[in-house]
Amino acid sequence: GVLGSGDFARSLAVRLVCSGFKVVVGSRNPKRKASLFPAAAEVTFQAEAVKKADVIFVAIFREHYSTLCDLADVLAGKILVDVSNNTEINHHKESNAEYLASLFPACTVVKGFNVVSAWTLQSGARDGNKQVLICSNNQEAKRTVAEIAQVMGFTPVDMGCMSSACEIENIPLRLLPAWKIPISLALGLFLCFFTYNLIRQVIHPYIREQKNKLYKIPIEVVNTTLPCVSYVMLSLVYLPGVLAACSQLYYGTKYRRFPDWLDQWLQHRKQIGLLSFFCAALHAVYSLCLPMRRSHRYLLIETAVKQAVEKKMTIWVEEEVWRMEIYISVGIIALGLLSLLAITSLPSIANSLNWREFSFIQ
Amino acid sequence: GVLGSGDFARSLAVRLVCSGFKVVVGSRNPKRKASLFPAAAEVTFQAEAVKKADVIFVAIFREHYSTLCDLADVLAGKILVDVSNNTEINHHKESNAEYLASLFPACTVVKGFNVVSAWTLQSGARDGNKQVLICSNNQEAKRTVAEIAQVMGFTPVDMGCMSSACEIENIPLRLLPAWKIPISLALGLFLCFFTYNLIRQVIHPYIREQKNKLYKIPIEVVNTTLPCVSYVMLSLVYLPGVLAACSQLYYGTKYRRFPDWLDQWLQHRKQIGLLSFFCAALHAVYSLCLPMRRSHRYLLIETAVKQAVEKKMTIWVEEEVWRMEIYISVGIIALGLLSLLAITSLPSIANSLNWREFSFIQ
Amino acid sequence: GVLGSGDFARSLAVRLVCSGFKVVVGSRNPKRKASLFPAAAEVTFQAEAVKKADVIFVAIFREHYSTLCDLADVLAGKILVDVSNNTEINHHKESNAEYLASLFPACTVVKGFNVVSAWTLQSGARDGNKQVLICSNNQEAKRTVAEIAQVMGFTPVDMGCMSSACEIENIPLRLLPAWKIPISLALGLFLCFFTYNLIRQVIHPYIREQKNKLYKIPIEVVNTTLPCVSYVMLSLVYLPGVLAACSQLYYGTKYRRFPDWLDQWLQHRKQIGLLSFFCAALHAVYSLCLPMRRSHRYLLIETAVKQAVEKKMTIWVEEEVWRMEIYISVGIIALGLLSLLAITSLPSIANSLNWREFSFIQ
Repeated sequence: GVLGSGDFARSLAVRLVCSGFKVVVGSRNPKRKASLFPAAAEVTFQAEAVKKADVIFVAIFREHYSTLCDLADVLAGKILVDVSNNTEINHHKESNAEYLASLFPACTVVKGFNVVSAWTLQSGARDGNKQVLICSNNQEAKRTVAEIAQVMGFTPVDMGCMSSACEIENIPLRLLPAWKIPISLALGLFLCFFTYNLIRQVIHPYIREQKNKLYKIPIEVVNTTLPCVSYVMLSLVYLPGVLAACSQLYYGTKYRRFPDWLDQWLQHRKQIGLLSFFCAALHAVYSLCLPMRRSHRYLLIETAVKQAVEKKMTIWVEEEVWRMEIYISVGIIALGLLSLLAITSLPSIANSLNWREFSFIQ
Repeated sequence: GVLGSGDFARSLAVRLVCSGFKVVVGSRNPKRKASLFPAAAEVTFQAEAVKKADVIFVAIFREHYSTLCDLADVLAGKILVDVSNNTEINHHKESNAEYLASLFPACTVVKGFNVVSAWTLQSGARDGNKQVLICSNNQEAKRTVAEIAQVMGFTPVDMGCMSSACEIENIPLRLLPAWKIPISLALGLFLCFFTYNLIRQVIHPYIREQKNKLYKIPIEVVNTTLPCVSYVMLSLVYLPGVLAACSQLYYGTKYRRFPDWLDQWLQHRKQIGLLSFFCAALHAVYSLCLPMRRSHRYLLIETAVKQAVEKKMTIWVEEEVWRMEIYISVGIIALGLLSLLAITSLPSIANSLNWREFSFIQ
Repeated sequence: GVLGSGDFARSLAVRLVCSGFKVVVGSRNPKRKASLFPAAAEVTFQAEAVKKADVIFVAIFREHYSTLCDLADVLAGKILVDVSNNTEINHHKESNAEYLASLFPACTVVKGFNVVSAWTLQSGARDGNKQVLICSNNQEAKRTVAEIAQVMGFTPVDMGCMSSACEIENIPLRLLPAWKIPISLALGLFLCFFTYNLIRQVIHPYIREQKNKLYKIPIEVVNTTLPCVSYVMLSLVYLPGVLAACSQLYYGTKYRRFPDWLDQWLQHRKQIGLLSFFCAALHAVYSLCLPMRRSHRYLLIETAVKQAVEKKMTIWVEEEVWRMEIYISVGIIALGLLSLLAITSLPSIANSLNWREFSFIQ
């Protein structure tokens, strides 16, 4: 059974019908709403729908839960699936599912399907996350709902008892929360270093020697900026660990909470590290592209021609040769080690390592 | 207990013995077959074997299930594990496990172990997929079989009730079904563009100016072809979404099914996108290799020598410099963004994103 | 309830308190130890603590389990969670959890939380492995502990019945066991080939022609060494399969166990293959860096100047051009195929393939 006639209710009905379930929809105005639902779903009055169904999806807003109170008698003993979401994180003190359970103590409430979008329900879980997080205080009801999710093509994940409902309701509201600060940081650093390098490599030669080096902006200036950003961010990954150790030494205990700013910083280390790796990898690609540029070819030929005309033969500068060889080989090794770190941060690799192996690699 | 003496039955017996289980094998001709099984497994007549065992693996073909009907009395109350596979997808109307359950209503039937190959059973699940998909209508029996799978070194995955049996039986028959169309498409496009570029870069100059440019085939022609394929495929990723939106606007509803061809196309977008990324990445590697080639060096020196002999000094063409700088930097940024898409299509990354985050990145 | 006052007991208490549980700590000297625990946790005598708690974490060493025997009466009927680790793999004949269960037959023993470090308990499972492996012969007790783990922010994984305890206790002791032999092998091969190439490319020209080629060590010698290592290791991946097939043909059976050395070798194929890929990828990056080097530029200009002075125009050597073009294009294709293998060895990709697909790609 499905209560409600909104977008989510309709997508849910479509999907249930497609998966071979018998669906009955409860609406306050079944005649007008019937045309919105697939023909195979029976649309009727709420009380009648509830009588015919054992598992009832409550696809209405939290604000309207109380309108169902008239149905309390027919609902008794049924499984209610709360699929609702909030509009803000931790908007209400109590999760929607717990509120529903308090309104209908005679029902078994299961939280689930809220992490799925109406679009995914309609089109099937083609890519992206196929998990449906489910929690309930009743094992039997949880299993019934998990099996419905399975047949619908999703992967049910048992999240334990009802106290997880609040956490499950907050999930769809997140938008990469752990990445906001690290990305702004990276952009900020990029801007600073880019300006500095622009002045140094383009504007300064223009003012002093009237040389037009504007062509350096798209590649050379960016390529000098990226490793600076990468270095600063890599040091920001290891700095908070040192600060934390100092704080522990200072207070003489490991069990004291760190100040909030340090705690936040410690939590963002993985993201900062991955962005540092991303900048380093981009720097490698930019550097590899340098000899492909037309300007590189022109400068090379120009030097050769100048040398030939002046009949100078030896141009070998041992020091410059060595500097470049060592610089490149150290860079390759550093990038190789950083990619090892990046690979172990993939969830599926991290899950196959124990903590000793993980900290050994880190 | 294991019924059957085929390859799978023998591998199963070997593995069970190695995992510390007491194994009894039921055969119609125990004397002749005993030598095929490990010494630690007892090989006896079917009826006797069934009496001694609580969990019985039925490792015989579906066609011979009916030969077990004589054993119906001794089998009553036991757990039967159906490990059979089909030779074709959806060959029979009813899954093998459901057919077995209908023949022996007094037994508890569990579907499982069919996704594992005889080779994996023998050598242990070293790499590849270690999951054993299990389904049954009886929770207790499912748990017993899951624990056997665990001890044997596999990861049991609960697939719900018996109605999933059909799906589980189809899994080992698949061979990258979602990749067939996208790969043929990519190969077809590659062939077309390769022929065009071959004519333009090699055959045409040869006919018009008798110039031998055959050396361009292995790298330069391929390298001009790859981005063409990549662009066309990338546009094929985004086109069906536009067509779907148009169809929704035209019919005025989101709930109408798309025509089959559009639905198929929408389903293959992920694979087409990954192949587009693969072509783009190959193009990047090919381009980076260009300055490594001997021909590049020869052409460079030739130009320098010609310039020096003719005493021409300035060869700098501002427009060409700019074109190349912008082309390379835009290419790097595009490749960086495409790799972000490719990384989020890894199952373990996709599972850690909610649908808002996933569609934000896409 | 938590028994014990060591590092792990304290971290556990901190984490439980932070997750909203009511915690009571049992100690033999509650007055002296109280200051070590968070204020919200009640620290009292062992017997009293046990009386107040339903789930008791036994955070003491295996050697001291017998000191709890006085509490056998008050412990009866409670759930004991064994969180202990060993100092060596398979140190005792019986796992710690099974030993605890034999001491307190009236209790339900659950093994769990030993795969988590004290540090992760304190700071929360920020990155790395969040899984808590749990096993027990009692389903109900296992579920209770799993839900506690869930609320604490970990992912409980059901590992079946108590016989898995030994395996779970060995997990934290591993340190990349499957990688030790392959990595030593790769390092050994690298050293051999590096010495050979050093003699050939640097020492030999110096002795024979007094030419200083030392600058070749950081990049050119390493770059000639890497593909040799990669080739040898790739052949070591496919060789044992051939040997195994020969052994099967020789003995006329597939069911004979392979000798231990061959079995070990077969088990390490995946790691050897990944290291081979790593060397090949490094070789690709080194090769791409070659034209970026200062020495490359100097040699190029030198040749151009020499040619110009001697007024020689044609330097095109058709054979060398073709050799390089073919060499590079074959290398790119080989690297592309190897990366396909590397990607399918990611656990999350391998789990989404069935065995036919996996062996097709391999």
